[in-house]
This record gives sequence, C-alpha cells and structure tokens, in this order.
Amino acid sequence: MTQHETSTAAIDPGTWHEGRVGLWLIGARGSIGTVVSVGLHAMLAELAPPTGCTTASEAFAGVPLPAFADLVVGGHDVSTTPLRQRAHELVESGMLAHRFVATADDALARTDAEIRPGYDPTTHLGSQADAVRRMAADITAFREGHGLTHVVVIDISSTEPILEDHVEFHDADLLTAALEDPDRALLPPSSIAALAAIESDSAYACFTPSAGLGLPTLRALATERGIPYAGQDGKTGETLLRTALAPMFMARSMRVLSWAGTNILGGGDGATLADPEAVRSKLATKTRGLVSLVGDHVVAPLHIDNVPDLGDVKTAWDHIHAEGFLSSRITTQTIWSAYDSMLAAPLILDIARLLALAAADGQRGVVPEFGFFFKDPWGSDVHDFSQQTVALRDWAHATGARVHAAAQTAVTPA
Amino acid sequence: MTQHETSTAAIDPGTWHEGRVGLWLIGARGSIGTVVSVGLHAMLAELAPPTGCTTASEAFAGVPLPAFADLVVGGHDVSTTPLRQRAHELVESGMLAHRFVATADDALARTDAEIRPGYDPTTHLGSQADAVRRMAADITAFREGHGLTHVVVIDISSTEPILEDHVEFHDADLLTAALEDPDRALLPPSSIAALAAIESDSAYACFTPSAGLGLPTLRALATERGIPYAGQDGKTGETLLRTALAPMFMARSMRVLSWAGTNILGGGDGATLADPEAVRSKLATKTRGLVSLVGDHVVAPLHIDNVPDLGDVKTAWDHIHAEGFLSSRITTQTIWSAYDSMLAAPLILDIARLLALAAADGQRGVVPEFGFFFKDPWGSDVHDFSQQTVALRDWAHATGARVHAAAQTAVTPA
Amino acid sequence: MTQHETSTAAIDPGTWHEGRVGLWLIGARGSIGTVVSVGLHAMLAELAPPTGCTTASEAFAGVPLPAFADLVVGGHDVSTTPLRQRAHELVESGMLAHRFVATADDALARTDAEIRPGYDPTTHLGSQADAVRRMAADITAFREGHGLTHVVVIDISSTEPILEDHVEFHDADLLTAALEDPDRALLPPSSIAALAAIESDSAYACFTPSAGLGLPTLRALATERGIPYAGQDGKTGETLLRTALAPMFMARSMRVLSWAGTNILGGGDGATLADPEAVRSKLATKTRGLVSLVGDHVVAPLHIDNVPDLGDVKTAWDHIHAEGFLSSRITTQTIWSAYDSMLAAPLILDIARLLALAAADGQRGVVPEFGFFFKDPWGSDVHDFSQQTVALRDWAHATGARVHAAAQTAVTPA
Amino acid sequence: MTQHETSTAAIDPGTWHEGRVGLWLIGARGSIGTVVSVGLHAMLAELAPPTGCTTASEAFAGVPLPAFADLVVGGHDVSTTPLRQRAHELVESGMLAHRFVATADDALARTDAEIRPGYDPTTHLGSQADAVRRMAADITAFREGHGLTHVVVIDISSTEPILEDHVEFHDADLLTAALEDPDRALLPPSSIAALAAIESDSAYACFTPSAGLGLPTLRALATERGIPYAGQDGKTGETLLRTALAPMFMARSMRVLSWAGTNILGGGDGATLADPEAVRSKLATKTRGLVSLVGDHVVAPLHIDNVPDLGDVKTAWDHIHAEGFLSSRITTQTIWSAYDSMLAAPLILDIARLLALAAADGQRGVVPEFGFFFKDPWGSDVHDFSQQTVALRDWAHATGARVHAAAQTAVTPA
Repeated sequence: MTQHETSTAAIDPGTWHEGRVGLWLIGARGSIGTVVSVGLHAMLAELAPPTGCTTASEAFAGVPLPAFADLVVGGHDVSTTPLRQRAHELVESGMLAHRFVATADDALARTDAEIRPGYDPTTHLGSQADAVRRMAADITAFREGHGLTHVVVIDISSTEPILEDHVEFHDADLLTAALEDPDRALLPPSSIAALAAIESDSAYACFTPSAGLGLPTLRALATERGIPYAGQDGKTGETLLRTALAPMFMARSMRVLSWAGTNILGGGDGATLADPEAVRSKLATKTRGLVSLVGDHVVAPLHIDNVPDLGDVKTAWDHIHAEGFLSSRITTQTIWSAYDSMLAAPLILDIARLLALAAADGQRGVVPEFGFFFKDPWGSDVHDFSQQTVALRDWAHATGARVHAAAQTAVTPA
Repeated sequence: MTQHETSTAAIDPGTWHEGRVGLWLIGARGSIGTVVSVGLHAMLAELAPPTGCTTASEAFAGVPLPAFADLVVGGHDVSTTPLRQRAHELVESGMLAHRFVATADDALARTDAEIRPGYDPTTHLGSQADAVRRMAADITAFREGHGLTHVVVIDISSTEPILEDHVEFHDADLLTAALEDPDRALLPPSSIAALAAIESDSAYACFTPSAGLGLPTLRALATERGIPYAGQDGKTGETLLRTALAPMFMARSMRVLSWAGTNILGGGDGATLADPEAVRSKLATKTRGLVSLVGDHVVAPLHIDNVPDLGDVKTAWDHIHAEGFLSSRITTQTIWSAYDSMLAAPLILDIARLLALAAADGQRGVVPEFGFFFKDPWGSDVHDFSQQTVALRDWAHATGARVHAAAQTAVTPA
Repeated sequence: MTQHETSTAAIDPGTWHEGRVGLWLIGARGSIGTVVSVGLHAMLAELAPPTGCTTASEAFAGVPLPAFADLVVGGHDVSTTPLRQRAHELVESGMLAHRFVATADDALARTDAEIRPGYDPTTHLGSQADAVRRMAADITAFREGHGLTHVVVIDISSTEPILEDHVEFHDADLLTAALEDPDRALLPPSSIAALAAIESDSAYACFTPSAGLGLPTLRALATERGIPYAGQDGKTGETLLRTALAPMFMARSMRVLSWAGTNILGGGDGATLADPEAVRSKLATKTRGLVSLVGDHVVAPLHIDNVPDLGDVKTAWDHIHAEGFLSSRITTQTIWSAYDSMLAAPLILDIARLLALAAADGQRGVVPEFGFFFKDPWGSDVHDFSQQTVALRDWAHATGARVHAAAQTAVTPA
Repeated sequence: MTQHETSTAAIDPGTWHEGRVGLWLIGARGSIGTVVSVGLHAMLAELAPPTGCTTASEAFAGVPLPAFADLVVGGHDVSTTPLRQRAHELVESGMLAHRFVATADDALARTDAEIRPGYDPTTHLGSQADAVRRMAADITAFREGHGLTHVVVIDISSTEPILEDHVEFHDADLLTAALEDPDRALLPPSSIAALAAIESDSAYACFTPSAGLGLPTLRALATERGIPYAGQDGKTGETLLRTALAPMFMARSMRVLSWAGTNILGGGDGATLADPEAVRSKLATKTRGLVSLVGDHVVAPLHIDNVPDLGDVKTAWDHIHAEGFLSSRITTQTIWSAYDSMLAAPLILDIARLLALAAADGQRGVVPEFGFFFKDPWGSDVHDFSQQTVALRDWAHATGARVHAAAQTAVTPA
C-alpha cells in the first residue's frame, strides 16, 4: 500500500445524492474535449480504468462525488468538425488507441448533439450582451433538458493573446454599458463564456491562460451571484514537474540560480502558441509559480516552439542550476514527454466532480484549494505541488463530510 | 518571499543554552569529513554562507540549535592522511574552491589533532569488546577535554558489504559473549563504532548503508541506554530527486510502470562501489523507497558504475515511464550531476545540530522524523520527501519549544 | 540539394537484368521479419516511400539493384504464429501504423506460405547434417519454385548465448564427423542456418551477434564454395550513433576517457536480452567498435535492461567524457529512442539488394564493405561510420559498373 | 592503434624550415586569447600535452608545420586588462586549472607587451583608413621586431550585429573613398582588422560570425593582394556535433523533420549574445550548415540564452526528430556541455600553423579546406564534418609535400 492511501482510512465512504451533473466545455470539439468524451465512454464501457483521474485515487475514497456515469457532456465550440471525426484523427496521430474509439461512435454522436455554436467575434451580429444571453440560454436548456442538478462550465479553448487593461474591467456599470453596445467587442471570447456561466448559475473553471473570469468586475459578479469558481491555466506537464521539484531544492536550503526551459510541440496547441502574442500569456503564467517558489533572483529563460512534425506530443527540457554548500554546483536536467491533451482530460473530469461538490456544499466565489490543478492559482499563493495536494484532499474530505451530513439530515424522517 | 518562509513567522527566535557540542565523525578524513571541516572553517571565517544547511533556512528560525561556532569536530579514521592534504587534493580535483582552503590550515590541524585511529579488523589485537571500550574512551576523553554538553557520533565511513544474519544479532547475551571472544570478529566496523557511541552516551546517526546500529540487539541496547539515534544512508542525490518526484505521479493517479536508473561516478566512492558486494547494500536501500512510493509492480533496474575519470562528480540518469489516462505514455527523464560529498557535508552539520536538540530534550531511541535525511529511514515508512520536510520542521519546532521552555524555567529565580 | 547527392551525378542509371531475387529470412516471423514483409507490401502498394532504405537514396542512383518488386520473401522460423497475427500485434503495440497493415493480409499470407519450420535443437530428430540438408532443400525448392536468379539468406533470429570454442570449429573433417553424429548437437541453430545457406549456394548475411557463419571452418567453407557473405550484428541504434560520433572527438584530438551507456527496452528483444548469457554476446560486439575508435584506455560500462512496459521502443542513454585542451572537461550525453525493428527492417532490404549485386558480380567470400550495416564488421577493422558510408557507396558503384558492363556485353549482338 | 592513425603511416616526417611565425589575435585579451597564451606557455613548459590540437594528432604526422615554440603571440584589443589578471579570473571561475597559470606570469607579461590598442569606433579620431594604416603598422612592426617569416591574423573578438548591405561593399573605389572620409564609419571593427591584415600582407582567419573579410570588395582585395585566408565562425560545440551527426541520418536515408536547439551560457559570450542583434548573426551561421545537410524542409528553432550564473560553461540541448521506415519515429537528443573558450583555443593554434603552411606554399585567396574549423565555411558548401576532416588532412599532406619539396630544392647545392 502506498503512503497516501493510509490517510483516507478513517473516512466513511460517501455517496452522491445530488443527481446528474452537466459538464459544459467551452471548446468541446478540441483535442482535450474529444479525449474527455472518448474517455468517459471508455470508462463507462469498462475499456479503461480511471488512470490519471486524481479523484479516482484512494486518497479521495469516501468523498461523495458524482460518478462518471452521472456526468452529461455538452458545450460550445466555433468548430463544426464532429467529435467522431476528431477522435479518428487522434487515432491516426497516435494519441488515442484505436480500441477506445472503435465503439465510441454512438456516444460521441450523442455528445455532439449537445454542442452549440461558440461565440465568434468575427461573425457575431448584435451586442456582446446578446452573445452572453444566447450562450447562457444554451446552458440553461441543457440543464433543464437533462434534469441536471448542477452544471460545471470549463473553458478548454485555445489560448488568447494577453488582454490590455480597460477601465471597464474595474467598473461594473461601464462594463454593462459596453456589453450592450452593438458596436463594441470589448471582451475576449473567454470572458463572454465566463459571463454565460455566471448568467446560467453554473460553476466555472478556467483551464486556459486566457482572461476568462479573471477580470475584476467579472470575479466580483461571480462571487455576488454565488457560483463557485476556480482557475487558471491547467498545470499538466513542465510546470507540474517544476512545482514538484522546486520545493526540494528549498527544503535543502540550496539556492536555485537559474531554471531554463524549452518546450517543443506541434498539433493545434503548437500552432496557437506559434503566435507570439498568445505565447506571451502562456509564458507569464508558467514563470510565476517558479519565481514564487525559488525567489525572484532566478534567471528563467523559457521558450515554446511550434514544431509541427512532433504532433501532439509535448517535450520539455529544463536545466536547473542550484548552488549548494561552499558554492558547489548542482545541475539537474529534466526531459518530460507526453501528450498534453491526455494529461489535461482527466483533470477536466476531476474539476467537474469537485466543483459539483463545491456547488452541493453551497460554496460561493473562488475556491483556492483548486490550485492543485492550475499554473496560476486564483485565490492562493501556494504553488508547491505537495502542499496543494494536501490542501485539495483536506478540502475535499471536509466539504464531502458536510455534504454527506446534510444528505443524512435531509433523508432523516421527523 | 518564498512560501516556506512564511510558515515560521509566528515563532519566537530561540537560543541554545546547552554549551558546546561535539561532532564525532566515523571516517573523519574521508571526502565528506574533509568538506565538513573546511566548511565549518569557511562559515566561521565568513567566507561562505550556510547554503545547503537545512537548519539554516528560515523554516527553522526560532528553533534553539547549537550555532556552528558551538560545534567541535573530532573522530575516528583508519586513514592517517592529514585533513590538510585531503583538502588540497579536493581543490586539485575541482571539488573545493581554493579560497575556502587557503586559510584553513590551522583549523584543519586542530581538527586533525582530535582524530583517533579507527577500528581496523585486519590489524586489531584483542576482542571486539576491547575495540569498543577503546573507542568509547576516545569519545569520552574528547567530551571531557572540551567540556562538551553533548556529543553526536555520525558514521560517514565507506559502505560495507551486506551483512549476513547471525543469531547473535537477536540475542544480547550471545552478542556480549561473541564480542568478548578475542578469536571472533563478528561485527563489522560500523557496528563497533555504533557500540562505542552507545558506550559513551553519545547521540548517533548512520549516514551509510552499512549495518551500524541497524542490528536488533544494538538498537534495543541504544534505546535502553537512552541515546537518541537516527538513520540510515544519507539521501543526497538521485534518491532525493526520486522521493520528491514519485509522489507527483501518485497525486495525479498516474501509474508508474518503470523507473530505470544509472549512476556513474569516480573518486573514492566510485572505487568502493565497484566492489559488487558493497554496491548491493547501496542498491537495496536506494530501491526500497521507490517501491514504497509507487508500488511493488514497478520495474526498477539500477546501476552504479565506477568511472574513475569522472572524479567525485556523480551523474545519475533516470528514465521514468508512467501510464496516464487511456493508457497514454508519459516519459520523464532526469539527469542529476553534483559532487556527492558537497551534498552530504551540510546534512552532517544539520544532523549534529538536530540530534543535539533531541538530546537536550531527553529523547531516547530512534527519532523517526530524521527520515528527511535518509534513503532508508529508521522508525518510519514515510519516503515522500515533502511529507518528511513537514515532519522534520514540525518535530524541530515542537522539540525546540520544549527545550526553550525548560531553559526558561531553569533560569527563572524562585 | 544535400551534399552526398552531388557525388552521384556522373553515374549513368543502371538497370537490374538478373531477374527475381529471393530473400530468405532465418526468423521470418519475428518483429523484423514482420516489418520487412509489411514494408515491402506498403512500398509496392505505394502507401509508403522507401525512407530508411540506404539503397533507395540518391547516393545509390545508377547502381543496378533489384527493385523491391523483384524481391520474393520466404524463410525459416521455429514459431508458427502467422505473420498476419504478428502484424496486428505490432499495430496494437504502437510500432506499426494501422494503415500499412490494413490491406496487407493477402501479401502476408503469401509470404507465410513460404516459411518453413526452423531448426529447433530441442525437437530435432537425426543428425545436425540432416537438419542442414533439409533446410538447404527448403531454400533450393524456394529458388526453383519462383525461378529466382539469386537467393540471399539473412539471419534475423534471436541472439544466442556466447559459444565456447571447440576443436571442430577449426578442423573441417572433425566438424563434418560431428555433424553426422546423431548424438551430438555441436553447432548452434544460427550456424546450422548458415550451413544451409552454403549448401544451397545462397548469399548470406548475419544480422545477429550469434555465431552464424562466424566459425573459422564455416567461413573457409563459404569462401571455398564461392558464396558472398557479410556480417555481423546489425548496427541500428546506439552503436550507429557511437560510430558516427566517436570519430568527431578523434578528429579534434580530444581524448575520450569514458563512454558509459545504458539501454532499456521491452518486447521480445528485451526478454531475450534479460538472459545474462545472451546479453554478453551483444555487449561484446557493442563495445568492440568503440574501443577501436577511441582507444582501449576508454572506460565503457554498458547495460541492457529488460523493461517490459516499454514494449519495442529502445531507449539508450550515453554519457561521454572527453578531455580537451589543458585538461578541460567536455561532456556529451545522447539519448536515442526508436523502434529497433523499424530501424533494422530497411537494412535487411538493403543487404538483400546489395548481396544480390555482389552475387551478380560473382564475388566470393566476405564482402568487407558491408561493415556499414554491422556492429562487428567481418573482414574489416573500419568502424568509423562515415568511412563505412564512403566505402559502401564506392563498392556499390564499382560493382554496379562491372555488372552493368557485363550486361551490356551480354546483350550486344556479335 | 586507432583508425585515423593508420592513414599517415606512409608519409615522411617533415620539418618546418621557415622560421618563426607571428600569431596576431584581434581580441587578444578575451577568454580565447587568454587561453591561447596560457596554453602555449603550458605546452612549452611541458605542463600539458597538445590535447585538442588537431594538428598535433597522428593524422598530421609528417606535415611540415611550425612548432608551438615557433609561434610568437601579439594582437589588438580594446581592453587594457592584463592577460595575467584575465588568466587568474579564469582560474577563479573554474575554467583554467591553477597549475597552468601558476608559472605563467612572465610569459603572459611578454605577450601583453605585444598587444596594441584595438580599433574602437567610439573613440577613434580620423578616418577609418587611418585606423587601418595604424593597425597594419602595428602588425608590420611586430613582424620586423621578431624577424617573423609569416604573420597570421585571427579575429577572435566579440560577435558584431548583422551588417546591412551597402553599395560600397561591392565597389572598391566607393569603399576607398568612404574609408578616407573622416566623417564616416562605414565598416565594423572586424572589417577594419581584416583590412589591416591585408595591408600588412598577413594571412587571415575570421573565427567569429562578424563581417570581417566577408564583404565582397574586401575578399577581392585579399585575393588580389595574395594573402591566404579562411573563415568563418569557429565550429566548436553544438554545430560541431550537428555536422558530425546529421550525415548519419542521411546515410541511412532517414528524413530529418526537425532539429530544435537551445544553448545556455553565461560569461562574456553570454552577455554579448544577450544582445538580440548580435545573436541574430550567430543563429544565422549556426542553422545554415544544418539546412545544407538535411534539407531546407527541416524545422529548426534555435535559442541562445544568457544565463550569467552558468559562467563560461556552455550547455546545448538538441532534439532531433527523424522519420524512418514506414513513418517510424526516431528521436535523438544530445546534451553538450563544455567551456567554449577551451574548445576554441587549440583551434586557433591549428589555424595559425596551417595558414603559415599555406603562406609558405604561396597560396592566395580563400582556402576552402579550412571549412573543418568553421560553422560557415568560406569557399565551400561542405558541412559534413567527416568530409571536412578528410579534406583538411588531404590538403595538409599535399601542401606539406610541396613545401617540403621546395625546401629540399632550396638546400640542394647546384
């Protein structure tokens, strides 16, 4: 038995009493969205265990979470390529094994039928407020059509360029006026999607480095409206490794002098990040955690290169130079290589299950303990991955105990 | 400010009221011993900060520990090469910067004068009990000569071959009889040294994979005699990295399928480990923690090769294959390169300070929280380095608070 | 245009006038054999270009070689698993893309029909000479059945343990007597296959480190009987890289002090090499070339580990320490990762085409210029890969010119 | 005996009959210049063998080259920091062993006395033609003062930004006019130095990527004036490795799809290359050879990052993705780590010796066989390092034979 399993021994197994949960994906037809849909099918068909799903580990035993079978997937996307076709493309590229896709056609078609057109600023007619209302209506219809207790909106769409600040981002009235003006397109698509989540009373998570719910006015609105939310920018590969490794150097009082990194990848993500503006927002969130962990003296050049022939495999090389006793040189190099979308997909399922739990507990506003999942945690300065692991587990068990107790009370006759 | 610094904010600075502390090194003239002596000199001469000393970090602020100036070094060694010469050899080989050694001659000569002949089974006359008594007398004379409140014995001598089990290791009377028999040499040198620590009422730590105090009869005796002790096999490089990294995979519910490793090094350590018997004990302790963290299904071939031209730099390559969502392949490679003795030396100073604290608190027997320092922790199954970090800090602050309170009481007039 | 292409500009394109050529594989149903068969199908069906085939490059333009369509595949194997099933297993494991196998069923069935039972010492009845005669008859029947001008036998079966020397390996008469003795099984299967090649007047190549035609008596016999042959042990991955890289250090007068290597792999090859005896013969041939290139002072520990979860992907890490000007340290590390059978298969096709050319030219005995393909070249001390490249190209053009001229003469009317 | 040694067996040993040779370094007080001076001292004092000097290998046995003792060093530099001080700084940084510098003070002082102020456009008064005349006079005085038969000028100064084209670079008369105009500073310092070499009838080599003698008018002038010259941009580390490795992939008909690289380094070179303009010229020459070797379809992102804490050690990571048989993926990674100046210094000595030989042979204009030393060879399209190795050796032996024969003739009485 591994060590973390022992910590759950004292907790009674819990059961989810809250009915079905909607998982509404912004960018549902992208690589991550496709893997989420194929993966849910594969797990329900017992073709695959929930490897890679944090919430399926022993450490979460006893926490009342929706089962995978309780999840219903829908979403927005500007793409119209069917999930089935996307899935077969991912088989061709070597990302997905054929056996998981072979029997998934019907399941993917059902999910496809729940995907509505995303907000596309280049074709949208009317004000941005109209777009928000239309998208919120899509989500509400999804909720009602399936009789869902909770809906969790998760943004997994492509990285947007860094947003320049505007006065409207700090003043709710100005923002409202701007949104209603059909001649303005102030907010990026990710923030339109975040507003639709708020409008439809859904929980929300931002898995990208885009603005999303990150603007002050929007975050205030989300808290006021009472949705639980979390962000930002999924921590899947190189940054995960860095935040697991950096505390080791600090615990031993070594001085990390430099941490240089290079990422190479192709696929859709590579193409997006070939845009120098888009990559800037990614680089910013990637470096922030490192500086917080080892100090702002660290020299940390970082590159993301689009290398199309590599396809969806992302390879990251890091070179760490630390100073030890008597100025001794310690060098550590890491090479990480994996399909990024395959790392992200199970975390989407984890976030959906845990945000549903937060909603069941009536939590409002940002949930800092979700920092475990993110490069740039909202509501928290903690980047140390082991601290985040403990914090998330503790939060899940405490929240679960409350939800469990409430369910017990509810079913107890007078 | 980095994260771990914040955790110490609420703690009052403590002061060590217990006088000078002896650090008695078994193998005092080896590479680690030489670096310990040079390093103490360099820090006291303000040529170097205590980088690499865990106990000098903010996380230990407020814990009443002996200052570096409170430490007096002595030891046993079978070698007669003076420390000064050893230090200059380490400069030639590139391990030590010339500036730290340039002014160290007097300090090294003073330490050299405190080093007594080690136990050498090939030349020893008389019973092993005689050897223990002679060595214990050396330590006692050192303690009395310098008016030391506590002495900490730390074994940093060369790795011994794996010891076959004997009935005497489980029966105190049989062991006593064997030790008094001048025709038998049952115990390895590391255990003779451990007995001398017990006999002289010193605290003890085993920084090697050798038997040392690890035999059941000896551990019982140590507990009975009331010394605090800790072990085993210093966790300095590849294993440190592994125990920092493995929990990351587990926290994300990935399945680690294989973890292959190769170490190459020269120097004295390389030569010792070129002996297939000696390397076996090293490999055993290195793999134990990994299996405990990721499960015993892991395939973990591990090699240590003697490559003399590399000198004292140790380079380790690890290749980790983990399975993620939908059987997706995740490969991580790490390359660690450092002077092993430079990693070990500050930990020796940490252990000396912290075992002195344990002794001041009157702790008896194994101190499991020292697992932070060891590949194969005595008294603990915890290998996860971040858990060990938290445990050691908590232990130090709690122990320190008691020692501090006792000191306050002691100085309070009636 | 790349550099090596220019060197072929002056050479007239040649045409093969010698009819169809048999490619007889010892171990035809192994991974390499399966990839050879699938690959020939894929190239003939224009699903894949001849990437990886040396003889298909511009450097060989004008050399009269049999076309891929001129090759007919057959062989011996102790396994009865059909090629079709093997091919689908290689798709499942990720080695082969589904698209190459999807339409290959008929082609694989045709090849399967040409595979005869291999020599299995555990079940064989009669003398080893009987086995040789039976296998030679298989090859002759194959030649006659398909009207083949030349047959090339290539041994791609599993690595055998290192063979101890025997007096019979040096005395033809003693060997003959031993082979006819039904109670002895002196020769390993690889040498039985080599004798069958001689008996059937086929060209022969040994792609494994096994004994094969390597025994003195056998090589004398092969030369006497007039077959062209080449060996030994295909140079596909780590050793290829080493023999390309080592001359660079020498050309710059650096002194290579150590070259440490570790290989990890699973699959059938991994399992075979988990046998300490089999791995010894592999390690021996791998190190020989290195020593020849950089000098016998080099420290070169080398490991091959069976890591089943890695499947057929072989990963090799090399750490090279060279001394430069004023004892300066230069370290180079290489990490090679590829499917070994995919590297080997195109070389098998190259060897078949080139040995057919040698046969057409009437060459007898060992052809040293084939060292390009082998870790342990027969008839040559040259290991430098660039020298081997030049030598093979020069040989092919010179031989091709003779064969071309002879063909011209033959068709010229009197 | 290693392979390349055998090729020289048939060649008579030659002797240099041409007297002493001047080595005039542009940037004589930089890291490379300092190592050249320390190294010459160390070899003459028999403290070090000529490891790293190509011309000292067996392959050049019999070629009549000036001995190291025949070389006299001088140069230009804008820095006034004495060589002695620079040498001690390089000891402190770990680049140079103390033992080589300990006895070098007098030798370094003698060389220092031969270093004249370099051309500094920010302080220079008068026309650029004045600067050329002054610098040429410095070189001529050096030649005459020491009675040198030949002087070789080698530019090892810092990389300059890429130069924009000007009409004067293509028209000798316009250039002459511009140079005489005291209000213009058309040429970069590297080209002023190249003109001084021409003016003083010295041989010349450009070890940097700066313009130097690369401008068409200057190269025409050099050829017209009859000096032998070579360039450009020393091939010491990553590019050396690439041009040794790339031909391997091509020889096996693999298709190299991408070759991504990252270099990290500190020291003076790191600081210079932190200037985005300077780095552009470096990146351009680094990629050119790769494209020439593997085709211009290759995706080859390349970074050079200034990481000051790494000092003069340069570490380069390359990730190569090649396609093999049936679209199989082959990935190779290389990590190169060395002191760049220690790699460069022996090549400077090689170039000096070999250009003196060219001058002795009366060669005029570019010598393409020196491509062996350069990232961007002048007068040659050959980048394949093994082809360059053969070409240089052949050139040296052929040239040496002529020089040897001429010397024989000269001493033969009528």
